[in-house]
Amino acid sequence: MSDTRDLFHLPEGIVYLDGNSLGPLPKAASSRIARTVEAEWGERLINGWNEAGWMDQPARLGNRIGRLIGAAPGTVVVGETLTIRIFQCLAAALQLRPDRRVVLSDTGNFPSDLYAAQGLLEALGRGYQLKTVASDAVEDALGPDVAVLMLTEVDYRTGARHDMAHLTRAAQDAGAVVIWDLAHSTGAVPVDLTTCNAEFAAGCTYKYLNAGPGAPAFLYARADISELVQPALAGWLGHAAPFDFTPEFIPAGGATRFRVGTPPVLQMAALDAALDAFEGQDLELLHARACALAERLAEGFLSACPELERLTPSEPAARGSQISFSHPKGYAMVQALIAQGVIGDFRAPDILRFGIAPLYVTEADVDAAITAFGRVIAGQLWDDPAYATHKPVT
Amino acid sequence: MSDTRDLFHLPEGIVYLDGNSLGPLPKAASSRIARTVEAEWGERLINGWNEAGWMDQPARLGNRIGRLIGAAPGTVVVGETLTIRIFQCLAAALQLRPDRRVVLSDTGNFPSDLYAAQGLLEALGRGYQLKTVASDAVEDALGPDVAVLMLTEVDYRTGARHDMAHLTRAAQDAGAVVIWDLAHSTGAVPVDLTTCNAEFAAGCTYKYLNAGPGAPAFLYARADISELVQPALAGWLGHAAPFDFTPEFIPAGGATRFRVGTPPVLQMAALDAALDAFEGQDLELLHARACALAERLAEGFLSACPELERLTPSEPAARGSQISFSHPKGYAMVQALIAQGVIGDFRAPDILRFGIAPLYVTEADVDAAITAFGRVIAGQLWDDPAYATHKPVT
Repeated sequence: MSDTRDLFHLPEGIVYLDGNSLGPLPKAASSRIARTVEAEWGERLINGWNEAGWMDQPARLGNRIGRLIGAAPGTVVVGETLTIRIFQCLAAALQLRPDRRVVLSDTGNFPSDLYAAQGLLEALGRGYQLKTVASDAVEDALGPDVAVLMLTEVDYRTGARHDMAHLTRAAQDAGAVVIWDLAHSTGAVPVDLTTCNAEFAAGCTYKYLNAGPGAPAFLYARADISELVQPALAGWLGHAAPFDFTPEFIPAGGATRFRVGTPPVLQMAALDAALDAFEGQDLELLHARACALAERLAEGFLSACPELERLTPSEPAARGSQISFSHPKGYAMVQALIAQGVIGDFRAPDILRFGIAPLYVTEADVDAAITAFGRVIAGQLWDDPAYATHKPVT
Repeated sequence: MSDTRDLFHLPEGIVYLDGNSLGPLPKAASSRIARTVEAEWGERLINGWNEAGWMDQPARLGNRIGRLIGAAPGTVVVGETLTIRIFQCLAAALQLRPDRRVVLSDTGNFPSDLYAAQGLLEALGRGYQLKTVASDAVEDALGPDVAVLMLTEVDYRTGARHDMAHLTRAAQDAGAVVIWDLAHSTGAVPVDLTTCNAEFAAGCTYKYLNAGPGAPAFLYARADISELVQPALAGWLGHAAPFDFTPEFIPAGGATRFRVGTPPVLQMAALDAALDAFEGQDLELLHARACALAERLAEGFLSACPELERLTPSEPAARGSQISFSHPKGYAMVQALIAQGVIGDFRAPDILRFGIAPLYVTEADVDAAITAFGRVIAGQLWDDPAYATHKPVT
């Protein structure tokens, strides 16, 4: 494990268990960004677009991410933000089922995905509606009115993981188009979009891919699907010939049509460097290691505080890479742990959440977290007036 | 002039007249980006969102840009890309005129703005249509069917500038809502959105603001307008309380509701540093200086090659900060100039375009460009087979 841990800058005295929110700085990213700023932007100026490969970043990095999620070359593009990508997927998916009006999701979906759907459906009018059900009730809610099933594979709060292949098949059998949000999956669990056969997927790169704050998102469109839909967010870099500057939008082939604006070149450089850490990694093995570490942490935490309610399933196939608990004092406990140098996070209303990213989280980290949590519980360190009010963190 | 020129990294031996496409690297940006990467992301990790002010970047930098375009505090947010921002403005503007169905623009608008409109209107259906007219026919095309007038203030090809205040008033008198794209205006010409009274505006920051390749865009919504519209691109950072994670989208107050996804923190750092160069600058004076330099260049170029057709008006109020010409051999001429170290750009079908950004372009630059152009013409250096085919640049 220390071989990949060494690829990351991890501050002294910190146990970092929040890579599910923002991954740490890959050492290679610092120099890659500096090179992009100074040698590319600084020296090549406008010519960087062609000479330094900026224009190709969305496709080239899309293919690199594609290898981590079982997506064929040309089916993934990088850029924009995740909420934008979800909006694009949904707007495209609805075109494939013009006679249906329901978008089905679950209450465990990340709220911004639901907001994107609400914004789109309200703009469209025409009787479209978003229906959310409990995460274990999704399959039963599929029916002839459901145009699109839109889910996040791994629940951001509990870490529970849907069975992507099974739900995709069930939804498609019921005539629906399927969109997966892979925010908490990419780089954390094995994903195989080709086998799964979902029409669309999207994800972000600042969590387990460690591409930095505000890193770009990606969109996947199954190879046979792209050409059937018109992008609702039509932008010049999704045009078949952007530099012809024709007044009419003519969509490019494949997933390229889902490009919109100019790629964020500096963030792309960070992503490129961050992806190096995944070269040669086996996601099955990484996830198995994460699960073992998470079980170790759970055992230690529950032993120190049996009142914690464990939220994350133990079966590897049923979980992501985080371990979550709930407790009425969850917010204060997380703050007290942070004061001890163990960085996890809190999600309303009462969830303690710890990301286990095995590229850099080690057994020693987990043991240090258990020791610190033991101190927090034994010394009632959470009972500090400074921790009385929940202060938002990302 | 040399006082501000010294704020930028300009490669030796280059005359850079393409800042209307991508501004050069502000020296302060290198260290600012490095600090954000290493001291903020590297050391503070997730806490950067609060401790390093990342979460406030979209509003704080929005206010900084606001000062350059006469926008009140709280009316400008930064993030996403320009095409996304145009889409958002248009989706919001249409809500204000539910009984009208025409979006009016001109054929000089940047194609991606038209694509954004096409994508949105096609998704909405309901008889919406985009109508484009010649740039001098806009006022006459206003009528009771026009919901929205959507224009770019400065034409990206010719550099001709609309009279924003006049057209805004005319459109509003005709009952339309007005959106201005300030891509070629911001940091180049004096803009006063408050006096102009347009409902919406958007712009990018990688041109005259010099914030780097893929720098984020901004959106302006007049203070009294934001609360009347529901964002079509509803995202968690536009929510009134993003960290409550409510399943229903509740829009934040003011322009904040037009935030969508996580801000691109590294690009934001570059923008922050780039804006420093505008502190204490008077846009009236800057633009006057640009016009004088452009006239000097035009005189020299036309003297060397009287067959050039000048496209940019000479009256300062009627023009942006570039100077454009057309010539059947325009593409080859621009390539030959680049080979001489003078970087301008070409826009299809036959336009030679030179950006005059007086923060760093000097009389000596212009004179060097004139000398180089003289060599190109006198030596027929454009007549090189390598320049026969138009190769796209951004």
